[in-house]
Amino acid sequence: MGDNFLYLTKIGIDTYQHAIVFMRRDCHVCRAEGFNAMTRVRVCTDKKSINATLIIVSEDFLSHQQAGLSDTAWDMLGAEEGGIAQFSHAPAVDSMSYVRGKLYGEALTNEMANAIVGDIKEGNYSDVQLAAFVAACADDKLSLAETIALTQAMVESGERFHWSPEIVLDKHCVGGLPGNRTTPIVTSIIAANGYLMPKTSSRAITSPAGTADTMETMTPVTLSFQHMRDVVEQQGACLAWGGSVSLSPIDDIVIRIERALDLDSEGQLVASVISKKVAAGSTHVLIDIPVGPSAKVRTHAAAEKLSHHLFETAAALNLTVETLITDGNQPVGEGIGPSLEAIDVLAVLRNKKNAPNDLIERSLQLAARLLRMAILDGPVESLEFYYQLAKQTLESGAAYEKFIDICHAQGGFTEPELALYKQTLFATESGIVSFFNNRFIAKLASLAGAPNAPQAGLKMHVRLGDKVEKGQGLLTLYAQAQGELDYALEFYQRHPEAIQINKEIL
Amino acid sequence: MGDNFLYLTKIGIDTYQHAIVFMRRDCHVCRAEGFNAMTRVRVCTDKKSINATLIIVSEDFLSHQQAGLSDTAWDMLGAEEGGIAQFSHAPAVDSMSYVRGKLYGEALTNEMANAIVGDIKEGNYSDVQLAAFVAACADDKLSLAETIALTQAMVESGERFHWSPEIVLDKHCVGGLPGNRTTPIVTSIIAANGYLMPKTSSRAITSPAGTADTMETMTPVTLSFQHMRDVVEQQGACLAWGGSVSLSPIDDIVIRIERALDLDSEGQLVASVISKKVAAGSTHVLIDIPVGPSAKVRTHAAAEKLSHHLFETAAALNLTVETLITDGNQPVGEGIGPSLEAIDVLAVLRNKKNAPNDLIERSLQLAARLLRMAILDGPVESLEFYYQLAKQTLESGAAYEKFIDICHAQGGFTEPELALYKQTLFATESGIVSFFNNRFIAKLASLAGAPNAPQAGLKMHVRLGDKVEKGQGLLTLYAQAQGELDYALEFYQRHPEAIQINKEIL
Repeated sequence: MGDNFLYLTKIGIDTYQHAIVFMRRDCHVCRAEGFNAMTRVRVCTDKKSINATLIIVSEDFLSHQQAGLSDTAWDMLGAEEGGIAQFSHAPAVDSMSYVRGKLYGEALTNEMANAIVGDIKEGNYSDVQLAAFVAACADDKLSLAETIALTQAMVESGERFHWSPEIVLDKHCVGGLPGNRTTPIVTSIIAANGYLMPKTSSRAITSPAGTADTMETMTPVTLSFQHMRDVVEQQGACLAWGGSVSLSPIDDIVIRIERALDLDSEGQLVASVISKKVAAGSTHVLIDIPVGPSAKVRTHAAAEKLSHHLFETAAALNLTVETLITDGNQPVGEGIGPSLEAIDVLAVLRNKKNAPNDLIERSLQLAARLLRMAILDGPVESLEFYYQLAKQTLESGAAYEKFIDICHAQGGFTEPELALYKQTLFATESGIVSFFNNRFIAKLASLAGAPNAPQAGLKMHVRLGDKVEKGQGLLTLYAQAQGELDYALEFYQRHPEAIQINKEIL
Repeated sequence: MGDNFLYLTKIGIDTYQHAIVFMRRDCHVCRAEGFNAMTRVRVCTDKKSINATLIIVSEDFLSHQQAGLSDTAWDMLGAEEGGIAQFSHAPAVDSMSYVRGKLYGEALTNEMANAIVGDIKEGNYSDVQLAAFVAACADDKLSLAETIALTQAMVESGERFHWSPEIVLDKHCVGGLPGNRTTPIVTSIIAANGYLMPKTSSRAITSPAGTADTMETMTPVTLSFQHMRDVVEQQGACLAWGGSVSLSPIDDIVIRIERALDLDSEGQLVASVISKKVAAGSTHVLIDIPVGPSAKVRTHAAAEKLSHHLFETAAALNLTVETLITDGNQPVGEGIGPSLEAIDVLAVLRNKKNAPNDLIERSLQLAARLLRMAILDGPVESLEFYYQLAKQTLESGAAYEKFIDICHAQGGFTEPELALYKQTLFATESGIVSFFNNRFIAKLASLAGAPNAPQAGLKMHVRLGDKVEKGQGLLTLYAQAQGELDYALEFYQRHPEAIQINKEIL
C-alpha cells in the first residue's frame, strides 16, 4: 500500500484534546481505504503514528493530495508542513476488549489496567471508547483490587519524582469547596518547621480557581522540572503548577470525559488522587474531605467510605494517608477567585486582624495533622501540641517569611490585583442566613470571569447563621469587564436561592 | 442576549450523524458565551433548535460574523444560507440523569426510558453521552421490565404502520449469517398463500449485503410510504427498504455507537428487533437465530435465553413471536454480496437444478412456521403439513410468480448483474473442510466491494465436511475493480484460516 500517502497540512482547527484528520471524499486514499466520515484512522509518518477521527470535507478546503490535521493531531504527530503520512483504518484498540469484559462483569487485572492506561495515554481511545471505560468504572463498580491496579497503572504511565528525605509531605482536598485555599498557608507552616513539602497543584477546570491560579497572582508557577527541584532544595517546599510535569498523564483525559458525563466514580477518584501523590514522590498525604449537601461528598457515611478506599489503596502503594472530614456547608474565607483568595491567604499569613477565621482554623488543623504525621520515630505528642506549634509558626511570622522566600525562589512576589468593576448584591429581606448552594456560588464567580480573569470572582460578606437586615450586602461581584459583571448578575437574578435567608420567626 | 447571533453558512463538511458548528475564537458570540473547542452548544433559529459540538477554526474559514455548519447540522436545523441563529451553551440534557442513575444501580422506569429515547431522537445526546447509555445497557444490565420499557419508548418515538388484516406476518434474522437471504423466498411463499407480509428490510452497515441491497439488484426498493402501501394492497406483500420510513428512529443511532464499541447488549438487541416489528404493524413474527462459534449468538444456551427475552418482551407489547434456532456454522447458499445472493434467490424461486439446497431448506422451514403461526382459529395442522404446503407453493412456481408481481409493483424487475473481475482461491492442501470463520468470509466479500459495488462479493464452492483436493477451488472473489480484487486477495493471504482444512487422517 505504498501509494496510500497524502501531504500533511495544518488546517487551523482547534478540537481541544481530539486528533482530527480532514480529507476529501474523492482523494485516492479515502477511496482505496473505504473511509467514511467519522472513521477512526491511523496516521503514520516515518517518525510517529497516531489515531485520529476522519472528517470529510469538500474541495474548497484541500487539494485531493492533502490531508488536513487539527492542531492537536498536528502536535501529537510532530508533523511538518508538506510532510507525508500513510493512512489506514485504525486497528482495533486491543485493551478495549478489557473494557468490554469489565462491562460484561469480569474483573480488571493489573495487566488489563496497564494495557488500558497505556492505550489511553497514547491517544488511542476515541471519546466514545473513553466514555465506555468511564461508565464501566462508574460509582462503586471498581473493587479495591481494581482501584489499586488502576492506580498502579496510572503511576507507571507517567513521570515520577523522587526526593531524598524519608518524609515528603503532601495534602489534597476532595471536591471544590469555594475559597478553601489552605495549601499556601499549610505548606508555608510545614516548610518553616523544616519538613519537605514540594507542592504541585492544578489550575481550575470548571471551578473559579485552583491553587495554581491563586498562586499565579503572586508568583510564577510554571516552573521547569529543574527549577522546581532547585526551589525545593533551597526552601524545602514549592507552590507550583503540576501541569508542566507529566504525573499521571491520563488523569486529565479521564476527568474531561467524567465531566462531560457528570459521572462520578469512586474508584477513578481514588486512583486519580493516589496516583498523583505517588508519582509526585510524596510519602505522607493528608486528605481533606469537605462534607455537605452541595459539596462533592454529600454525607458523613460517604466520606468514611471514601476515606477507607483512599487509605487502603494508598497502603497498597506504600503511601501513608490520613483523612480529615471537614464541614462543606459554606464557602471558606471571603474571596472566591484567584486574586481574591490570594488576598485572604496573605491576610492570614500576615496575621491581619481581618483575616478570615475559618481559613486560619482549617489551615492550622491541617498543618497540625501533617506535623504529627511527620514524626516517624520517637514519641508522638498530642494533636493539641502540634496545633500550637502550627499556630506559633503562623503568628510569629515564620510561615509568612517562608512563603515569601518560596515566591522569590520561584521568580518573585507581587501583590494580587483587584478587579476593575464590582457590584454588591443585597438581601431582599431580613432573616437568618440558612443555606449556601456552593455550586451556584462557584458558578457566579466563574461567570464574573474567574479564573481567566484572575482578578474576577466574588467576596462573601455573610456566613451561615448570620442575622441579616433587608438591604444588607450579601456578596460583592468583581469583574474585569462590565459584560461579565452583567452575566453574573443575570445568573444571580435567575438563581437567588444561591444564598437562602429564612425570615426570622418572631 | 439579543446580540448573540451569527450568519449561517454551509461549510461543506461531512461528519456523518454528528451536528458540528464551526466558529472563530475571536467572534463575538464565542467570547461572550465563553465557548471552547468541543463545547456542546445550542443553535436556535426562529424555526428550530439543535444541539451541536463546536469546533474552533482560524480566520481562513469564516468571517467573524459567521458560523459554519456541518452537513448534518445544516439538515437537522433546516438552515438557509445567510440565515441567522443564536448560540448558547447547550442546556444539560435532563434525561442523562437517568442514564447516570442506571449506572449507579437504579432501574429505568417507563418515564425514564421515554425521556432518554426522546432526547436521543432529538439529537440532544453527544456521542459520549450515547456511549454512556449503551454501556449502561451492556450485556445483561437491562432487566426484562427495562427492556420492555425501552422497547415501548422506541415504538412511540417513531412512525407506526397499521394494516387492516388481523394477521400481519414478519420475520427477522439475528446477526448476519453470510448468504442467509431467505426473506425474498419466504415472503413470496407467504404472500402466494394469501397472507399479508409487508416486509421492510435494511441495507448492510458492516456486512456485505442486507436484504434491501440484494433486492435492489432486481427491483426498486426505496418506495414512498404511499407506494409501499399500494404494493402491499395489490400483492399482499412488499420487499422494500425500511429506511425511508422512520420506524424506531433511535435504532440506527444506538447501533452506530454499539458498533464503535463492539459492545453487545441483549436488552438493546431485543428492544431494537421488537420495536421495529411493532412499529411496522406486524402481529406475528418468526425470528431466526443462527448459532455457531463465529455467529452473533455463540451457544444454544445463549440462543434459548435470547429467545425467552424476545418472547416475553414481544408479549408485553401484544406481538406474537416464535423463534427458530438454526445452524450458524457456515455461510448459506453460494453467493455473498447483493447480486450473487440475488442469483441464488432467483435460482431457488425458479426451481433451478443448481439452486443451493440449504437456502431452499431454510426458506421452507421458516415459511412453514409462518404459515402455521397464521392460523388464528380452527385446527392447526402439523408442521410437516405446512412444510409441504410451502414446498408446493415454491415448486409449482406460484412463489416465483408472486415475487415477480411484487417486483413489478415496486417498479420493475431486472436480472442481477455479474461483476467484471473475478478470481478463484484454491485449496493449498488436500483434506476435509472443517471450519468457516463467517466474519472473515464476510469481510472478504466487503473488501471485494460489496455492497457499494452490488455485483461484488464472493461465491462459495465448498461446505463443511466436503473433501477437497489440493488445487480445488474453495471460493471465487468478484469485484468491479482490479484494486478491490487485490485488496480482498491480500486479506485472504493474511487470513487463510478463514476456511480451515484438516488433512485427512489416513
